[in-house]
Amino acid sequence: MKHIVSVLVENKPGVLSRTAGLFARRGFNITSLTVGETDDPTVSRMTIVVDGDDHIIEQVEKQLNKQIDVIRVRSLNADFSTRRELLLVKVNCTQKNRGQVIDIATIMGANIVDMSHSTLTLEMTDRPERLNLLLDMITPFGIAELARTGMVALQKGGEAITASK
Amino acid sequence: MKHIVSVLVENKPGVLSRTAGLFARRGFNITSLTVGETDDPTVSRMTIVVDGDDHIIEQVEKQLNKQIDVIRVRSLNADFSTRRELLLVKVNCTQKNRGQVIDIATIMGANIVDMSHSTLTLEMTDRPERLNLLLDMITPFGIAELARTGMVALQKGGEAITASK
Repeated sequence: MKHIVSVLVENKPGVLSRTAGLFARRGFNITSLTVGETDDPTVSRMTIVVDGDDHIIEQVEKQLNKQIDVIRVRSLNADFSTRRELLLVKVNCTQKNRGQVIDIATIMGANIVDMSHSTLTLEMTDRPERLNLLLDMITPFGIAELARTGMVALQKGGEAITASK
Repeated sequence: MKHIVSVLVENKPGVLSRTAGLFARRGFNITSLTVGETDDPTVSRMTIVVDGDDHIIEQVEKQLNKQIDVIRVRSLNADFSTRRELLLVKVNCTQKNRGQVIDIATIMGANIVDMSHSTLTLEMTDRPERLNLLLDMITPFGIAELARTGMVALQKGGEAITASK
């Protein structure tokens, strides 16, 4: 089962390395880890997706809370969170089958952001499983290259996880 | 000056920790680091944005190329790349000023993905500097919380950076 952990950390050199190291040493299976700035320049937010049962997640939270650079740790319930990931993918296509790739992009809500004589580049932001569906649909054409960000998530509703509370 | 480095790495535990550690130890100033899966499950792609002059970038590339888990390193020119970042942000607003936040979202091309009596949650995918503009515009309303992914980038045109070439 996949769990989402939202972590506020001090924005300092070495924090990413130490946090990633903690997961590596303990053999936790990270599906994705994303780190970005917040509105407070001294604070970054990590969104970590971990595969495992409830016991594993408890261990992860406990270990994170022990880290000196960690300000706040919160598990997010997937059903009560807005979950999004960004994908850029360059698809092989010719003049002949370009229309088929455009159709898939339109149906899936992906934007076409670049083209060449032999490729189209698509951008799509959605839940990770929807990005997987797009990739599944375009794989037959040939994927030249792709980059995805890993998932970010915020809990639904008006509540917020902040450094001060 | 900001430089974009695209790195293909082996998808193994500890690679993120080792790579982030390399940057931390040498005091390179990372603006963002994003790691995600590729179409090949044994390979991940990191997109690293580093602040520094050409000499620093040369050092970064040299150090990355020495790592055993690193398959390929390529600097991307910002002008010849499709650069994108994803932002989720929960903005404070009431019934009275909700319309103003909706106007800003519409002008900037952000999607409204959740709401409550006291907040709106916006999703926006664009170049990082455009996300900064959205944040600047909504800061007066009060930002409850936000998560951003860091930048991903693919070079424009038909060429691709792959593990095999």
